[in-house]
Amino acid sequence: MKKDIPYKIYLDETELPQSWLNLRAFMKQKPAPLLNPDTLQPVTKEELSHVFCEELVDQELDETSKFIPIPDEVRNFYKMYRPSPLVRAYCLEKALGTPAHIYYKFEGNNTSGSHKLNSAIAQAYYAKKQGLKGVTTETGAGQWGTALSMACSYFGLDCKVFMVKVSYEQKPFRREVMRTYGADVTPSPSTTTAIGRKILEEFPGTNGSLGCAISEAVEAATSREGYRYVLGSVLNQVLLHQSVIGLETKTALEKYDVTPDIIIGCAGGGSNLGGLIAPFMADQLEGKANYRFIAVEPASCPSLTRGKYAYDFCDTGRVCPLAKMYTLGSSFIPSPNHAGGLRYHGMTTTLSELHAQGLLEARAVEQTKVFEAAEYFARVEGILPAPESSHAIRAAIDEALKCKESGEKKTIVFGLTGTGYFDMMSYEKFHDGKMSDYIPTDEDLQVSLSKLPKV
Amino acid sequence: MKKDIPYKIYLDETELPQSWLNLRAFMKQKPAPLLNPDTLQPVTKEELSHVFCEELVDQELDETSKFIPIPDEVRNFYKMYRPSPLVRAYCLEKALGTPAHIYYKFEGNNTSGSHKLNSAIAQAYYAKKQGLKGVTTETGAGQWGTALSMACSYFGLDCKVFMVKVSYEQKPFRREVMRTYGADVTPSPSTTTAIGRKILEEFPGTNGSLGCAISEAVEAATSREGYRYVLGSVLNQVLLHQSVIGLETKTALEKYDVTPDIIIGCAGGGSNLGGLIAPFMADQLEGKANYRFIAVEPASCPSLTRGKYAYDFCDTGRVCPLAKMYTLGSSFIPSPNHAGGLRYHGMTTTLSELHAQGLLEARAVEQTKVFEAAEYFARVEGILPAPESSHAIRAAIDEALKCKESGEKKTIVFGLTGTGYFDMMSYEKFHDGKMSDYIPTDEDLQVSLSKLPKV
Repeated sequence: MKKDIPYKIYLDETELPQSWLNLRAFMKQKPAPLLNPDTLQPVTKEELSHVFCEELVDQELDETSKFIPIPDEVRNFYKMYRPSPLVRAYCLEKALGTPAHIYYKFEGNNTSGSHKLNSAIAQAYYAKKQGLKGVTTETGAGQWGTALSMACSYFGLDCKVFMVKVSYEQKPFRREVMRTYGADVTPSPSTTTAIGRKILEEFPGTNGSLGCAISEAVEAATSREGYRYVLGSVLNQVLLHQSVIGLETKTALEKYDVTPDIIIGCAGGGSNLGGLIAPFMADQLEGKANYRFIAVEPASCPSLTRGKYAYDFCDTGRVCPLAKMYTLGSSFIPSPNHAGGLRYHGMTTTLSELHAQGLLEARAVEQTKVFEAAEYFARVEGILPAPESSHAIRAAIDEALKCKESGEKKTIVFGLTGTGYFDMMSYEKFHDGKMSDYIPTDEDLQVSLSKLPKV
Repeated sequence: MKKDIPYKIYLDETELPQSWLNLRAFMKQKPAPLLNPDTLQPVTKEELSHVFCEELVDQELDETSKFIPIPDEVRNFYKMYRPSPLVRAYCLEKALGTPAHIYYKFEGNNTSGSHKLNSAIAQAYYAKKQGLKGVTTETGAGQWGTALSMACSYFGLDCKVFMVKVSYEQKPFRREVMRTYGADVTPSPSTTTAIGRKILEEFPGTNGSLGCAISEAVEAATSREGYRYVLGSVLNQVLLHQSVIGLETKTALEKYDVTPDIIIGCAGGGSNLGGLIAPFMADQLEGKANYRFIAVEPASCPSLTRGKYAYDFCDTGRVCPLAKMYTLGSSFIPSPNHAGGLRYHGMTTTLSELHAQGLLEARAVEQTKVFEAAEYFARVEGILPAPESSHAIRAAIDEALKCKESGEKKTIVFGLTGTGYFDMMSYEKFHDGKMSDYIPTDEDLQVSLSKLPKV
């Protein structure tokens, strides 16, 4: 007899994964290696260790270990907010009148308000273990900066956050949460770094961008004794840590003998999607299962659907290694009317390669449609979603409505990465009918894509 | 063998309470009845039914039923965010170096950000069942208004919220969350009601107060066909609904054979504290247990510690029944530098009577000490607490530090009613050293207490 499925499936603390899953190790055709931008040779451990913590460099370069144990210190922190619930969206199903079964893995029940904490705590742990004084990073919408502040506060590390200027000004409360956790927050571009001063000289009055904040944070780390740079998305190590999302999801579904048909996640740099799909994709790569995977990105920043699969710079200042990824060009900046995160110009190499291999679908959605889905979801499921997460909601609703038409009883799982409490300014725009859609023209993209490095 | 206690004790959905617990029914000496302000006779069901939904009036006046079944529709909604976790504060204990064991019942993991949703959904349900079009209410800090908006959206009811003007202006994001759930939000005092116009005439430029917003909301309900007024605290019915907090807490503790020594809650109108202590106090009243109960209130609004136990008006406009309670006088308004909620001039009648009988201790704490505790807690336990909840944290920490001195291994349970995501302006003041304490002088209190009704 099948067990009744509760509204929320909570795993026991003892069911927290013991190891992270390294998706690349399951891929026959691996993602292309990171390249040193000067030599165009694959970056070495030594080169990366100037920028990143040593154990994180090992994880970054490890293509063969399928599982990497989660240190006890990290698991203990996880226990404060994990396992996160897998929710059966009974109310959403009913409101839509769909025969589909919808589940979402909710990562918003922690103070950072998103899944970002899963990797922040791991990165802070390795920094502490290496005896560092502190770490530097960039943040856009502010979720990653908040998560890292919390993690650094827990391990007693100094935390320097370069926050994209427009967000710093529009989201004073995010900044204040970071200060509560003792972080030092600087609007980027700033005059505290050489690259910041150069960008300010070239583009006075700029609103800043993620790529530019990354360059400043890297410089701040490498020019200080006892500091390293950490990043909340895009990197392999981040996907690795985020696999805890997918592993818990899979355990929870298996407890109730549920097999998903479609797995959906929003995609900016790819950290949440990569983590959510990790164990499912691993099974697929081993021929054990057959799922549809859908990456949902903003139409205003459409790296997978309209970008080029090529080597590109990871940051505006061009201090980071080159990565082969779907990219819009490192100088691409989404239109100012784009709300929320998911504004990175590229996509993590693993998801890029899976997309290139035809294993991962991608679709782009316009933001007014995203906010419609967000408000609808808030009203029927009670959770006020982050704009980023709402991209996945949009696609999940669309798939559920297709099931309604076809009468198919598919099982849809999506990642609800976080809450929108700090995004009410965007919701206000939406309510007041002041939100518009902007889709970059082909000409726009040609400009930024014309600056790809010659590799 | 004792079971290992996890970081978070989650009850199963099937362990959700089937009934609310009516604490008054366990009291030999009942709280004094509500009085009609004109006749000074106990209010009748008929009189109250003009203002409140019928079944809620029954609950308001019911002094004998020990348990009242929770309707299935309400339990189904509860399942979207309950049972809420009872957290063992391992990290806090370690940071304090105390032998005490500390637990907190966390009610912040829902979009309203607090326990208020527990009663909002019940009140909306009974309004819907009665065939009403909508409900009206007031909100101060905004938690109750948000909760009610969510509940009304779920049941398809119209929701009119009068929001204390100063909060309306200082917390535009709270207002926006309510709009997301379809509520109509008016700053109070407003020109949309007779009492609002009168107050504006008498005190032009006033910032508004809870008592005044209540008067407007009551008028808006009673002057419209198909509307009733609902309230988020102070009333007996609210304490009843909030007993779900205490019932879950007790079940969770019993699962692990834990008996608390001290139970602590913040107290404004008394809804959270009354709910948290309900089943424990019921046991105490039946001679089955012996706990210490502590109500923690702001030194800037000290109804239990410095108020008078007397009949008073519940609202500024004097349209509501008289209640016998610890009160500072219905014209009392906390100093403008008082942050957050807990700003009601009185205390719910049940808790007032329990305090008068010596069964409930009370202490007042200053807000800078409260924010110190809040920030400390955020850093070690990861959760950013609401200013209101942080009153309980302050007292819990103080009690744990006493244990450290005495070496006693007491078990402390406190209510963490909500999160502070919408209170960052207050946190900013605190970080910038701009927060001060203001304690009303005896002369201040004499002014408002001199206006108590003659009963």
